[in-house]
Amino acid sequence: MSVAVDSGLRGRLGGFIENRTTQRLIIALILINGVILGLETSPALMDQVGPWLIGADRLILSVFVVEILIKLFVQRAAFFRQPWNVFDFLVVSIALIPTSGPLAVLRILRLLRLVSMVPKLRFIVEALLKAVPGILSIFGLLILLFYVFAVIATGLFGQQYPEWFGHLGRSMYTLFQVMTLESWSMGISRPVMETFPWAWVFFVPFILVATFTILNLFIAIIVNTMQTLAVEQQEFEQETIEKVVHNESEQLHDDLKALHREISALRAEIKQLKSGQN
Amino acid sequence: MSVAVDSGLRGRLGGFIENRTTQRLIIALILINGVILGLETSPALMDQVGPWLIGADRLILSVFVVEILIKLFVQRAAFFRQPWNVFDFLVVSIALIPTSGPLAVLRILRLLRLVSMVPKLRFIVEALLKAVPGILSIFGLLILLFYVFAVIATGLFGQQYPEWFGHLGRSMYTLFQVMTLESWSMGISRPVMETFPWAWVFFVPFILVATFTILNLFIAIIVNTMQTLAVEQQEFEQETIEKVVHNESEQLHDDLKALHREISALRAEIKQLKSGQN
Amino acid sequence: MSVAVDSGLRGRLGGFIENRTTQRLIIALILINGVILGLETSPALMDQVGPWLIGADRLILSVFVVEILIKLFVQRAAFFRQPWNVFDFLVVSIALIPTSGPLAVLRILRLLRLVSMVPKLRFIVEALLKAVPGILSIFGLLILLFYVFAVIATGLFGQQYPEWFGHLGRSMYTLFQVMTLESWSMGISRPVMETFPWAWVFFVPFILVATFTILNLFIAIIVNTMQTLAVEQQEFEQETIEKVVHNESEQLHDDLKALHREISALRAEIKQLKSGQN
Amino acid sequence: MSVAVDSGLRGRLGGFIENRTTQRLIIALILINGVILGLETSPALMDQVGPWLIGADRLILSVFVVEILIKLFVQRAAFFRQPWNVFDFLVVSIALIPTSGPLAVLRILRLLRLVSMVPKLRFIVEALLKAVPGILSIFGLLILLFYVFAVIATGLFGQQYPEWFGHLGRSMYTLFQVMTLESWSMGISRPVMETFPWAWVFFVPFILVATFTILNLFIAIIVNTMQTLAVEQQEFEQETIEKVVHNESEQLHDDLKALHREISALRAEIKQLKSGQN
Repeated sequence: MSVAVDSGLRGRLGGFIENRTTQRLIIALILINGVILGLETSPALMDQVGPWLIGADRLILSVFVVEILIKLFVQRAAFFRQPWNVFDFLVVSIALIPTSGPLAVLRILRLLRLVSMVPKLRFIVEALLKAVPGILSIFGLLILLFYVFAVIATGLFGQQYPEWFGHLGRSMYTLFQVMTLESWSMGISRPVMETFPWAWVFFVPFILVATFTILNLFIAIIVNTMQTLAVEQQEFEQETIEKVVHNESEQLHDDLKALHREISALRAEIKQLKSGQN
Repeated sequence: MSVAVDSGLRGRLGGFIENRTTQRLIIALILINGVILGLETSPALMDQVGPWLIGADRLILSVFVVEILIKLFVQRAAFFRQPWNVFDFLVVSIALIPTSGPLAVLRILRLLRLVSMVPKLRFIVEALLKAVPGILSIFGLLILLFYVFAVIATGLFGQQYPEWFGHLGRSMYTLFQVMTLESWSMGISRPVMETFPWAWVFFVPFILVATFTILNLFIAIIVNTMQTLAVEQQEFEQETIEKVVHNESEQLHDDLKALHREISALRAEIKQLKSGQN
Repeated sequence: MSVAVDSGLRGRLGGFIENRTTQRLIIALILINGVILGLETSPALMDQVGPWLIGADRLILSVFVVEILIKLFVQRAAFFRQPWNVFDFLVVSIALIPTSGPLAVLRILRLLRLVSMVPKLRFIVEALLKAVPGILSIFGLLILLFYVFAVIATGLFGQQYPEWFGHLGRSMYTLFQVMTLESWSMGISRPVMETFPWAWVFFVPFILVATFTILNLFIAIIVNTMQTLAVEQQEFEQETIEKVVHNESEQLHDDLKALHREISALRAEIKQLKSGQN
Repeated sequence: MSVAVDSGLRGRLGGFIENRTTQRLIIALILINGVILGLETSPALMDQVGPWLIGADRLILSVFVVEILIKLFVQRAAFFRQPWNVFDFLVVSIALIPTSGPLAVLRILRLLRLVSMVPKLRFIVEALLKAVPGILSIFGLLILLFYVFAVIATGLFGQQYPEWFGHLGRSMYTLFQVMTLESWSMGISRPVMETFPWAWVFFVPFILVATFTILNLFIAIIVNTMQTLAVEQQEFEQETIEKVVHNESEQLHDDLKALHREISALRAEIKQLKSGQN
């Protein structure tokens, strides 16, 4: 029994689940679910209509579970080959894990199913992700820089400023803060310079190197996108030139053919002349 | 009686209101009004010449009201079809609503009529607005991200830090602040990490995702503008190629025509030869 | 006696002042002067070698004055037609005004003569200034926005927060700070929201509008530069197409000429045939 | 004995050191060394397994030293002509200088050898460095601006705010902070304005000029990269046009040759005619 079977239960269920009306209903349910999960953050509302909200949430969740089970039944192994299906599967699964602690709040990730359901959002996220491989090695370089600077900072300032540079993790967090330029001077560098007057030799170069790398990461994305535009431009150009030059040479070709015919006629007449001569 | 009538009262009023001198007078009045509303913010000046300022303000306002009434009389229903007219109508109407409270300050919005009156400013604002549809879906994605992160933040940190994450609105405001990188670490994230040491798992990814999305919003605008340039480039290219190739092939065509004539002459001579033979 | 006279005192002085060695000497003096003015900021050094530093400064200043007087004598009225000359004249003049107060520090502006003397720096500053007209109207819009928002802020928050929004000037300064995103939330908006809970309705839209406008100012500069590149590209394209097409059609033209000659030869032979017939 | 000798000890060592397996081993050792130096920042770990870590570090260092000695032996003077070799030499040498103080932490710079060993990282760093010459003169202008503004700030605010503007170095650090917009207003400018109400005349223009220059530095990099793209585009264009036009004209050329042959045949027949006449 092939995956693309159109008859039988699987075929009918596949048609039903990919139906436009069904898809819209799912999108509506995701939005309603988003509102419900938003309302659940209000303790006052939870006191009044908490059970109703939780009930509606569970109802919608079960619709999602059924939807995914149908898709699994219809597409079988092919289901997990599509990344967006895996995404749907994960964000719905999160809600099924029995959690009562702070992780229960991750149920809202279900709202991200909107991205996989609305083609425009899906297109944007895919475009964003397409930019990632092009910047991966710059990102790798950035992580290397972070690690090197974090080891230096921990070694130099760790004992005096344990809260900021106590261990590698703290140093990396603080360096991330410094890279975003948030309170890097008044909050971090100036206090450190009270103990280590030369600390600016560490912070200023770090900021220059980190922001310059980020800048190039940014330019890499722009240039990548531009290159795609340039390739389109080149294709258009090649087509245009070929078409225009071909058209004009076609006309010249026709002119030459006409000449050819005239010369043939000439030859025929000369042949007649020759036969007349003999 | 048609809208485009050129005779009668409507025609004369329409000519008067779109007259260059009238337009310049209106622009001058808007600027004077801007200065007056600026002066009105000074309590000292209001004590001295308050009634004069308010009087001048009312006088100018009545001129604007008369201007818009004339335009309404002249253009009738067509008036509201032009967005800039609606804009003028709204910013003047605001001043007519009897307000004594803080909203009275919105009278200054009248100064924005400068944008609708000065062609250069109008052009820029229209260009800015033209960039909006292209980034609407990225903006939608950003709002979705904000909502999801706000629900998570309210659920996780709401009880301990009610001032920052007390309800969805506060969380969204705080996340907006974090996205602008203002005091995100020293002001928000570090204090939260004192209670929830793993809070950076929330803040750092949020900053990365939010700034990366904003970055792409920015790149989308640049690329959109570039694409317009590229289309112009392509049109220029097509025209150039067509013109150049056409010109040159025209010359070859002429050459071929000359050959054609020669061969015809040849044929005529052969015909003579043939007739001579017979 | 014309301005372009090459003989006499003026000619010799003009040659001397535009001489490469003289120019290098002036650049060296500017640099030395920069160092001296830097050393003068140190009270300890001033106690020790103050008179020497001031003496050297005055000596160099007098060289500059003589240099400009020579240029004035040589070029006369034409001197003030070159903007960089006016710039030199102003920064040297500042030092001649007898000041003992804080304005004496403006003597360092003389160091900016480096820009007018070193061609590379001059080129960059001219390139930076060339970008200005293209963004002037966006800048005008930004100032309009600032004024409108400043009047609103002064009216709404002026009485409660006089230090930030006490009068129009203070409001504009605070809005500039908010636009740079510096402490806009923790420092300004959150405190204001304690009195006016709806203040975010003012600050968040201001930030969105101001940064979006700045962003477009930025994009305007990029696109302007790109358009210059695009025009160069189009010129190159036109030339290339014309050259290539012309070359190839030239060859075809030669082929056609050869054909022409053959046909002429043919005709001559037919004529011979005809004359033989008669 | 030439440098490119392939036999003997030098040849074999050169082959060994540039062998792919050897290279991968070195990369693995660099990564392990990075982890070890990271672990050494933890005092708890140092207490437990400190000697082991230091031992492993020394072992790996000695491998690096041997590696560089081999390279030196193989390449001799040519070794120092390659910048990456010099880089490797320096970061390994740093570790050999007997330091027990804070500079011991600079051993982590050895991890940067990853950049010289992994081609992708090397390519990025070379691309980043390639952008440097194009922005060097804008950078020079920025330093000039910094110096001028620092001298002014030291002169004006130095005595009252020694911590921020006490001497030229402090002023330049503070101006760097102001340029990154970090706490420029709430932290620096507003306090200064309490003593010097006109201080904003210094800070606001500095921010405008500095950020505008930085912006143009940024645009310079983008435009440089674009220009490279444009040159590629032009080369592609020239090739395409030449190829397309050449192909088509080749066909026309063939047509003309056929015509030529026909006319030759014609001529031959006329010659026969003529010989028959005689």
